[in-house]
Amino acid sequence: MGETKIITLNHGSGGKLTHDLIENLFLKYFKNKDIITLTDSAIVPSQSSHLAFTTDGYVVEPIFFPGGNIGKLAVCGTVNDLAVSGAKPAYLSCSFIIEEGLTFDELEKIVVTMAEEASKAGVNIVTGDTKVVHKGKGDKIFITASGIGFVDEDRAKIGSADKAKEGDKIIVTGSLGDHAIAILSSRESLTFETPVVSDCASLNGLIEKALEACPNISFMRDATRGGAATVLCELAEKTGKGIIIYEKEIPVKESVMAICEMFGFDPLFLANEGKAVIVVPANDADKVLQILQMHELGKDAAIIGEITAENPRKVILKTSTGGKRWIDMPSGAQLPRIC
Amino acid sequence: MGETKIITLNHGSGGKLTHDLIENLFLKYFKNKDIITLTDSAIVPSQSSHLAFTTDGYVVEPIFFPGGNIGKLAVCGTVNDLAVSGAKPAYLSCSFIIEEGLTFDELEKIVVTMAEEASKAGVNIVTGDTKVVHKGKGDKIFITASGIGFVDEDRAKIGSADKAKEGDKIIVTGSLGDHAIAILSSRESLTFETPVVSDCASLNGLIEKALEACPNISFMRDATRGGAATVLCELAEKTGKGIIIYEKEIPVKESVMAICEMFGFDPLFLANEGKAVIVVPANDADKVLQILQMHELGKDAAIIGEITAENPRKVILKTSTGGKRWIDMPSGAQLPRIC
Repeated sequence: MGETKIITLNHGSGGKLTHDLIENLFLKYFKNKDIITLTDSAIVPSQSSHLAFTTDGYVVEPIFFPGGNIGKLAVCGTVNDLAVSGAKPAYLSCSFIIEEGLTFDELEKIVVTMAEEASKAGVNIVTGDTKVVHKGKGDKIFITASGIGFVDEDRAKIGSADKAKEGDKIIVTGSLGDHAIAILSSRESLTFETPVVSDCASLNGLIEKALEACPNISFMRDATRGGAATVLCELAEKTGKGIIIYEKEIPVKESVMAICEMFGFDPLFLANEGKAVIVVPANDADKVLQILQMHELGKDAAIIGEITAENPRKVILKTSTGGKRWIDMPSGAQLPRIC
Repeated sequence: MGETKIITLNHGSGGKLTHDLIENLFLKYFKNKDIITLTDSAIVPSQSSHLAFTTDGYVVEPIFFPGGNIGKLAVCGTVNDLAVSGAKPAYLSCSFIIEEGLTFDELEKIVVTMAEEASKAGVNIVTGDTKVVHKGKGDKIFITASGIGFVDEDRAKIGSADKAKEGDKIIVTGSLGDHAIAILSSRESLTFETPVVSDCASLNGLIEKALEACPNISFMRDATRGGAATVLCELAEKTGKGIIIYEKEIPVKESVMAICEMFGFDPLFLANEGKAVIVVPANDADKVLQILQMHELGKDAAIIGEITAENPRKVILKTSTGGKRWIDMPSGAQLPRIC
């Protein structure tokens, strides 16, 4: 058996070992034709008069989990942030902060997944950086991904809530809580008949279909940290309107619900990594729902509620048993380091 | 005395405390008018047909040092990466990975410095992210900054070495090693009559002056991790030419040299955060040097050598005592976590 190659402080030095890592690992998988010049910056063509620009740090623990790993998460999360803002995702950067001792094999697995997911989503990873910190000063690997997307002017306000209005229907693109419960299961080494797998996916294809069918979509947001509840609370706050949602309409997998009951979690507040909240004029709701359901990533999409004049700035849940519950934004997280 | 406010895991949850942090700290200092829409992405106007895109993780230890802090470093480093690639830096993102327990005061100091430096450099910080990790899983704060710059087509290749040729002169924009030695001094609690201060600065103004005076500049690179030596080794490798530099021409402060001698460091290999290597046709060298020296950040600029036909792919140092030494790219760093 060969020796396990590990990442050392010198791989983050900017010297030969950093260069080796760039040439033999990152460029091996990330190389692409959009790059005009590549130094510490990548120079790439611009494609529209408006840019969307996003960044997110990924610190998920464990770094490998059912349905993905930290690298897939970084690509999907960045693509999704761009897509829900009305942009066509185009270029990604990735910055690795590695704790010394990570194995090359682990790093390569992550990088390969990132390249695969980028290719699937139709984006290019064009620039990056690597830093290495001492043992105990990090946690295996943190990734910060940034992304640039191009936005048509008529879509530039879709991420703001400016167009959302009374009567609009609220759609979620699929079952809630899968990502958080997949992470929890792998932390707690829970085993189930039907294992819960993260929903980690790039939604730009699905969202493009929805926007083509209904350019009037009022609002979109991916429901990551803080879950769908946090998105809805922000929406109520921004619009000054009320929101009502119906518990029985909210898609949650049986296996996810079972674990939620065991741990006292509410799936509405759990992180998703492949689900968006989409708000559409009532007239378009069924059409958008149909379009979503025809797509692999939207097959469990559902209309879960609507925007109301009553209860301004509040989100109200009508429970399956006929009760009413006020949904407030949580001050903290049910699970830290979920993404 | 009031209680010291510290950052907790919940500030990274995506819930209320994250929102408070964004509203009351980040947006307080970073708000700006270029942003058309701000959600998880910022939507901003594009200004040219070519974009430069860069990212860097900052893990410097200590996070506050003579001449700056990790936030100033993040802004300057990103601005400089864009500027040396021929771009006009425009938009920055910042992603914070914070170890729980960092104080609000420390975070605010960092954020204020970032806002000040961004304003000085004429760039806008338009988007960001915050994650918080458990004690012992990070080290106070890591920042990943990404940046977008706009590039005129005739400048799109300046960061590549395509135009560098035999006879071109090699300029450094000022004294070498200040940043690394400032970090080392503060780690080792060294005190000196003349304290060494980091050269951390945004070079886009200086570089714009140089490019206006000499659009034919062959090559530019900021001399960060790995120092000027690493830039020159890469240049020799890329051009296939030789490089000769003269020890007596290399600007190094006396105080820096004294510490280098004490620790056995070579200033050529030490990180700078406000210095660039600029390669110019011989005919333009004096003009560019003059322009640089008229600027506060270039007053110690010097011509230190030239590109040669001899010694292809090698960097040769002519020492002050008349000897010759081959400068090779280091495999690791003299000092880890310098930026």
